[in-house]
Amino acid sequence: MKLTPKGQATRQRIIEGAAEYLRGNAPGAVTLDDVGAVTRTSKGQIFHYFPDGKEGLLLAVARHEADGVLTDQEPHLSALDSWESWIAWRDAVVARYQAQGRHCPLGALMDQMSGSPGTAEVITELLAQWQRAIRAGVVSMQASGQVRAELDPDRTAAAFVAGIQGGVQVLRATGRSDQLEAAFDLVLDYLRGA
Amino acid sequence: MKLTPKGQATRQRIIEGAAEYLRGNAPGAVTLDDVGAVTRTSKGQIFHYFPDGKEGLLLAVARHEADGVLTDQEPHLSALDSWESWIAWRDAVVARYQAQGRHCPLGALMDQMSGSPGTAEVITELLAQWQRAIRAGVVSMQASGQVRAELDPDRTAAAFVAGIQGGVQVLRATGRSDQLEAAFDLVLDYLRGA
Repeated sequence: MKLTPKGQATRQRIIEGAAEYLRGNAPGAVTLDDVGAVTRTSKGQIFHYFPDGKEGLLLAVARHEADGVLTDQEPHLSALDSWESWIAWRDAVVARYQAQGRHCPLGALMDQMSGSPGTAEVITELLAQWQRAIRAGVVSMQASGQVRAELDPDRTAAAFVAGIQGGVQVLRATGRSDQLEAAFDLVLDYLRGA
Repeated sequence: MKLTPKGQATRQRIIEGAAEYLRGNAPGAVTLDDVGAVTRTSKGQIFHYFPDGKEGLLLAVARHEADGVLTDQEPHLSALDSWESWIAWRDAVVARYQAQGRHCPLGALMDQMSGSPGTAEVITELLAQWQRAIRAGVVSMQASGQVRAELDPDRTAAAFVAGIQGGVQVLRATGRSDQLEAAFDLVLDYLRGA
């Protein structure tokens, strides 16, 4: 669907309003009437922008939240070119997920949409972008001689993604960030050659 | 509820039948009638053993599947006392999750039961047991001088748990095991002091 700039703005307003509402309410129980009420949009308008109804809207919200996962890691994630940046990134990610605690909006959406078409794609694309950004950081540290050349940037970035993802999952289940912090610190130690 | 040995056997039969049925069917759509049919049990019997109905039964199945996560890692997980054991453990876990692919029975149950009382406890206990077993392996490698004494066994075990958990989550979303393998190999390299 080709939207005018005004249409795009309305669509974005619905997504952001729905995202905010969903941060405080379980996705399963949310109705299009709820979304209409909080975004002051009619049901006809919602169906205009999201012809699949709730499923399409939830997918757009998931994409929006997935973008947020990466932008919340900036400015560190795009500039991992010194040890200070890596530490600042680690601290920012840990603080963000500690603040979030057990309630992960993207995770709750994914649980709800488990198996829906499009969901796996949103997550796959998020993970790939994330891993590329970390990989670029490893490569830049190698270029400046701060990380040994023989280290494999792809596997190191993949291990970071696994460790952070798993640490966040553990935090969601247990409320504790020990595993997240341990994963970060171990991979950072490995990167340093400590 | 105190059960006779026969009662315990019936309860266990219902759990195992439901677990098997749930491996092929989405937990959200499964009814107690389905479980009754596949386990040849009356609804009255199911409610006798699971007074909370479906929620209590799903929780018991989740506990059963969580036990399976650890027993599937034996005999390696309880005997991580040589590099051969660590490698055999790594290979067994990777092969198990590759075979499972996108469909994780415990994960699907957890998605469905997200927020239900008891769910967090099942996962917390699973993760704690898992981490203790890995920690014991690190300590035994240190006792035999195969791993340097200054390495922190708790943090190393916590990083393993995060990496494996995250790797499995990524595999569920993308169908690929690269992140799982990278996490294992990186923590093993770190353990070896490579």
